[in-house]
Amino acid sequence: MLAAIHRLPILTAMRLPDFYDVRAAAGRVAGHAHRTPVMRSTTADTRHGVQFFFKCENFQRMGAFKFRGAYNAVASLTPAQRDNGVIAFSSGNHAQAIALAARLLDTRATLLMPSDAPAAKLEATRGYGAAIVTYDRFREDRQALTQRLADEHGLELIPPYDHPAVIAGQGTAALELFEETGPLDALFVCLGGGGLLAGSLLAAATLAPDCAVYGVEPQAGDDGRQSLRAGRIVTIPVPRTIADGAMTTHLGQLTFPIIQQHVRDIVTVTDAQLVGAMRFFAERMKMVVEPTGCLAAAAAFEHAPRWHGKRVGVLVSGGNVDLAAFARALSEDPPAN
Amino acid sequence: MLAAIHRLPILTAMRLPDFYDVRAAAGRVAGHAHRTPVMRSTTADTRHGVQFFFKCENFQRMGAFKFRGAYNAVASLTPAQRDNGVIAFSSGNHAQAIALAARLLDTRATLLMPSDAPAAKLEATRGYGAAIVTYDRFREDRQALTQRLADEHGLELIPPYDHPAVIAGQGTAALELFEETGPLDALFVCLGGGGLLAGSLLAAATLAPDCAVYGVEPQAGDDGRQSLRAGRIVTIPVPRTIADGAMTTHLGQLTFPIIQQHVRDIVTVTDAQLVGAMRFFAERMKMVVEPTGCLAAAAAFEHAPRWHGKRVGVLVSGGNVDLAAFARALSEDPPAN
Repeated sequence: MLAAIHRLPILTAMRLPDFYDVRAAAGRVAGHAHRTPVMRSTTADTRHGVQFFFKCENFQRMGAFKFRGAYNAVASLTPAQRDNGVIAFSSGNHAQAIALAARLLDTRATLLMPSDAPAAKLEATRGYGAAIVTYDRFREDRQALTQRLADEHGLELIPPYDHPAVIAGQGTAALELFEETGPLDALFVCLGGGGLLAGSLLAAATLAPDCAVYGVEPQAGDDGRQSLRAGRIVTIPVPRTIADGAMTTHLGQLTFPIIQQHVRDIVTVTDAQLVGAMRFFAERMKMVVEPTGCLAAAAAFEHAPRWHGKRVGVLVSGGNVDLAAFARALSEDPPAN
Repeated sequence: MLAAIHRLPILTAMRLPDFYDVRAAAGRVAGHAHRTPVMRSTTADTRHGVQFFFKCENFQRMGAFKFRGAYNAVASLTPAQRDNGVIAFSSGNHAQAIALAARLLDTRATLLMPSDAPAAKLEATRGYGAAIVTYDRFREDRQALTQRLADEHGLELIPPYDHPAVIAGQGTAALELFEETGPLDALFVCLGGGGLLAGSLLAAATLAPDCAVYGVEPQAGDDGRQSLRAGRIVTIPVPRTIADGAMTTHLGQLTFPIIQQHVRDIVTVTDAQLVGAMRFFAERMKMVVEPTGCLAAAAAFEHAPRWHGKRVGVLVSGGNVDLAAFARALSEDPPAN
């Protein structure tokens, strides 16, 4: 464990998580996170000449893998930290995941959410008993604001991806997948801040060391691929893509070195390919998958020829899509407005 | 087994199936039909004060439970019958189920489908290698036409529900559910011609004799409820409902006596309730469920107060809904056209 840490450059005061952290996280989330099903599709297999294994985190609690990392992070706090409570910033699934984890683990969550966040999302987060602090996303620096509140009130800050316990928690999805399927030849994982990909890489490196793991980004936001090529974290402007969970501008101080060490490559897909995968999931696999959740599948379908006859895992990360937007994507003639 | 048959009125030359037929069917479909997952929803449980167990046949091959009965029926044929081939009539899932089962079991399927059936459906059925015979649904009697073709060419007719092997095959879904959950207090099952309900009743009567099993019809087509009240098979005009799988006009000669003997009651739901359940499945459980597949859930939600704190099974029968229609149902402001 120490050896693994020392092989990597120390970029941060926080230590890098490893496989043992993923395994410990699996013990913590067991019975709290759903053990989501691995779905098969004869149609996908026949069409692409590959055996696909879809790990369906759209069926996770809260509708996304984010619950795993949030729960593991809150469950890893000391009793004193838990007494004080936690704080997080997120406009997406991480906020609700922290709110739910805090409620289940009997601690108090404060969440910074943009004042223009959808009312339904604010309501859902409040429904889990969390305190909401809204901010103006165009005028205020949410990270600085969160840090200030954390310092003032002694709250434990749990960021959405760059945190050892969050990364380890996200890795439990791939761990369950390998437990169920055995080694795979390739695994495709969506890439935003890198929490899910880094966690998956830690699981794969031990459980399926020959498995080629790919990170998948939206074409409009390929900072991860650029970073891998440059050998340092590259920051880009906020990308315009329907994959709202991958609108991150840069990888994390913890996620990047793990990705750099273990990933086979980082590939990209277009928004049109995401819509194609979303329609495939709805039409043939009867699943609602959010655009970000389609990244891995879109790339796996695209790269299928290279994996002909092989066993390929696809991490379907979540299903939290606004129903109206989902309906528009499914319609053959989407409304102009 | 004989005793069970003799307790029931003999209404037909075909013998009534019983639990042993369901168990034998389970052996036949094992490894061919998917063992579909039983999904849970904390939201549904909390909202209704009930522990729900959703048996998800929308994830079945072909997207519906129909594959179970079709496969069991074709697999139960004698070698001579299989050499001749099978014939079936259906505008819906049964046609594709028979076509796929025939291909898997190396026999030839002829299918009568209305000439105005959706091109996609005709194409899909043809894609399984079946021969398609189209007919004018307004001028021709499809049942008589099918029988004539069967007689002329020595084909084995497999009707969509009123057949012992079809009923027994459909019963394997409930059998798997009880195997996974243990006895339940109540089970809701959609009701069209009665194949799925009759099969489920046979499974429940042996595996969970105290379980109250309900058939669920669209309000516009309550011939089953009327039949139960009248003590005889009541025929109604083709009902207008979005539950296209339950647009049947009467129960079967085999399904009715089984339903009459074992069902707790037959209840109805409105199309608006079906849309509500369809939205719930998409939004909270991330599943695509066709309107007919929402019948059981809509009734289970409606009747939840009676089952407070209890364990309630819901048979989600299928997910084969046209994407455009599905998108319209999900939209808060459905287009006027």
